[in-house]
Amino acid sequence: MQFELTREYIEILREVIDAKNKEKAISMAHELHAADIAGIYDELDIDEAKFLYLLLDGEKAADVLAELEDDDRERFLKVLPSDVIAKEFINFMDSDDAADVLADMPEDKKDEVLSLIEDVELAGDIVDLLEYDEDTAGGLMGKEYVAVNKNWNIAKCYEEIRSEADEVDDIFDVYVIDDDNKFQGVFSLKELIVADYEDEIKNVYSKKTHFAKTKMESEEVANIMDKYDLVTLPVIDDIGRLVGRITIDDVVDVIRDEAEKDYQMASGISEDVEHSDSVWRLTRARLPWLMIGLFGGVMGARVIGLFEGDLSANAETALFLPLIAAMAGNVGVQSSAIVVQGLAANTIGLESAFSKILKEISVALLNGIACAILILVYNLIFSDSLALTFSVSISLFIVIIFASIFGTFVPLALNKLKIDPALATGPFITTVNDIVGLAIYLIISRLLFIMII
Amino acid sequence: MQFELTREYIEILREVIDAKNKEKAISMAHELHAADIAGIYDELDIDEAKFLYLLLDGEKAADVLAELEDDDRERFLKVLPSDVIAKEFINFMDSDDAADVLADMPEDKKDEVLSLIEDVELAGDIVDLLEYDEDTAGGLMGKEYVAVNKNWNIAKCYEEIRSEADEVDDIFDVYVIDDDNKFQGVFSLKELIVADYEDEIKNVYSKKTHFAKTKMESEEVANIMDKYDLVTLPVIDDIGRLVGRITIDDVVDVIRDEAEKDYQMASGISEDVEHSDSVWRLTRARLPWLMIGLFGGVMGARVIGLFEGDLSANAETALFLPLIAAMAGNVGVQSSAIVVQGLAANTIGLESAFSKILKEISVALLNGIACAILILVYNLIFSDSLALTFSVSISLFIVIIFASIFGTFVPLALNKLKIDPALATGPFITTVNDIVGLAIYLIISRLLFIMII
Repeated sequence: MQFELTREYIEILREVIDAKNKEKAISMAHELHAADIAGIYDELDIDEAKFLYLLLDGEKAADVLAELEDDDRERFLKVLPSDVIAKEFINFMDSDDAADVLADMPEDKKDEVLSLIEDVELAGDIVDLLEYDEDTAGGLMGKEYVAVNKNWNIAKCYEEIRSEADEVDDIFDVYVIDDDNKFQGVFSLKELIVADYEDEIKNVYSKKTHFAKTKMESEEVANIMDKYDLVTLPVIDDIGRLVGRITIDDVVDVIRDEAEKDYQMASGISEDVEHSDSVWRLTRARLPWLMIGLFGGVMGARVIGLFEGDLSANAETALFLPLIAAMAGNVGVQSSAIVVQGLAANTIGLESAFSKILKEISVALLNGIACAILILVYNLIFSDSLALTFSVSISLFIVIIFASIFGTFVPLALNKLKIDPALATGPFITTVNDIVGLAIYLIISRLLFIMII
Repeated sequence: MQFELTREYIEILREVIDAKNKEKAISMAHELHAADIAGIYDELDIDEAKFLYLLLDGEKAADVLAELEDDDRERFLKVLPSDVIAKEFINFMDSDDAADVLADMPEDKKDEVLSLIEDVELAGDIVDLLEYDEDTAGGLMGKEYVAVNKNWNIAKCYEEIRSEADEVDDIFDVYVIDDDNKFQGVFSLKELIVADYEDEIKNVYSKKTHFAKTKMESEEVANIMDKYDLVTLPVIDDIGRLVGRITIDDVVDVIRDEAEKDYQMASGISEDVEHSDSVWRLTRARLPWLMIGLFGGVMGARVIGLFEGDLSANAETALFLPLIAAMAGNVGVQSSAIVVQGLAANTIGLESAFSKILKEISVALLNGIACAILILVYNLIFSDSLALTFSVSISLFIVIIFASIFGTFVPLALNKLKIDPALATGPFITTVNDIVGLAIYLIISRLLFIMII
């Protein structure tokens, strides 16, 4: 009953498709959920996928298309003529999914498809939705919802739900509007069922409820729905008219994507990629950060070059160059990760940036003391050079403090400047910390070797 | 209407609390959602929080307690006597939230609280739920749901919902069972409303639906609910009896926590911490990985030590030690992040580990060639030593290939061994790559300096 995709299944399916066995292919696809069929896409070549998808009936084909990854969908739609896209797929889609599909198309093909959609109301809804930035509430919402006038009674509300049932796939709650379509409140189907059939809607609905304005960022939408445990969120325009509905499944994707994006950026991956993407795409996503790392390494080499005389005189200084650089990087990544996550999940607290950095310094002091003492003991045992021993410990301590402050400050500052703070983490902070760390170490070494020798 | 927590608000609230102005405090709290009141906790000291929370009426107090972060809750409950916890809080909670609260308590206090819960059915449900591991479907589920017998008609179903309405806060769908309480299927409230009042349930419900067994891991639960866009998931025991319900809000938390945890691990943070946690806790979460980094740095120093003679003879070799180490680390983190995310989101695809690594090598070849050529050009311009120039480029190329393979292989291997692959990323892979990278660079330098000079 729960479907699990296996290599055997794919092999059978491909044989069926390659044999052009339509009947068998339809019956295999019929048993699967749209999400599972979409999951198979990566395992098929484009002609096989086309053969299979065009066999599906409209509703299912539309669902499968909605479930495909953005880049898979783009590749797939490229091989289809506009009228097939409009009539076999878009016609059966919810407005928000349809708008997502069309948003990724080239301008001229998009217009052609729009003109070929038979359901005029749907085409109008899609055009409306395409106006919104995809990272806002307007970009997330669909036009399918049930709205009732606050002056109606419960019986009329039942009627309305029944008449909209075909149009709106999932109904969890009913939105209440006034005569001007201004949003008034909400009540759940449970409250509807519990209410007396003859009662007035105005006695049932909650007036104090959450909503989003069309321009609200999708991250904030996700935070509200997560925090208040909502399954749908009404969307209103600037003058309070109800214009759409966001459902929790879209927001789950936002939360997942957001968290993945932060992690990927911190790992030095600049595009949203997956292991299943092409080699070229994976390379393109990774090379930019490696270039920054390379540039940082060259700068580091230049810094070290300034002290080449010291290194010739005291070659053992070189032993701890990578240690200092690595520790600076590690500490910076830790600090920035905590800030970036706090900003994303909105748990960063109210205290000022200054007091945040103060706290970070306290943590760094403890970590710095612990690490400096450990390496001191190691070097007292294994190194003959007192100058080196103290250089490493003192500079490690300073570097940990500096890297902590820098790793905390940069994402906070970027956030203030409305730049995604996740950009700062990973290679950028690591690289700067590396270079500064090396400079601190080499300067302190020079001083101590002069003083102690 | 949408509440935003500000420093001014907190100051006013604290003044009200400190003046023991109960009436004003109640009216301020009354306006807020439980999640917002929980959000204030961090800004209050423990006595202030206690004063405020004990003023709330039962339902709200229970909701606030459920919304608190685990460690905040633990601290808060420590200052309350068992009978207050049982009667003012637990009595009004849903079974899953209550079980979460009790699971974190010391054994003897837990038993005492359990014995003081007045609602015997709730106490029984909590005891049942406490049996399950918190990272499984059993640990996520609550005992509150609406179940109807498949032989009933729709009218009886309405009755059942009305009679359970007080007990079950959110009802989105109705589970269908047989006479032995075995799970049969599900239908939504929308389907209920659309159905004819006189119809039989068996004509309405879907037999092919998703469910979880109690032992299913919470990550898999999250993947199923996300993939199939479900707002609730029924949970069954080993012989198919319906035992609970998981709601999407709990799963959103799982998804968020899981993604955050992977990111934190990759950033070298070993406990689930937030910026608002104590300095001590933050230090404890970060120090272990720094120790590993330190150990790696010492190992690196030992490796370099083996080549100290080379470094004395050709001091310029030292210039690129941090570059090689940093690039090895960066590439390894990139590779492992892609694998870890793919494993978490279940998008890793079906091809074998071998073909995954083969793909990774292709990406590494492209990245390696690009980086090696860039640094070659740089050194041809700025370095007088041909031996150094070629050492850096050749070893950078090899190091990028090695780090990619290692970064891909380790999380795949850990996953095979049922160890969390996220453990491998960040400091561990970085550290190993650093050391190996240094060794490769120093060996190649020695060879080239012998050959070319």
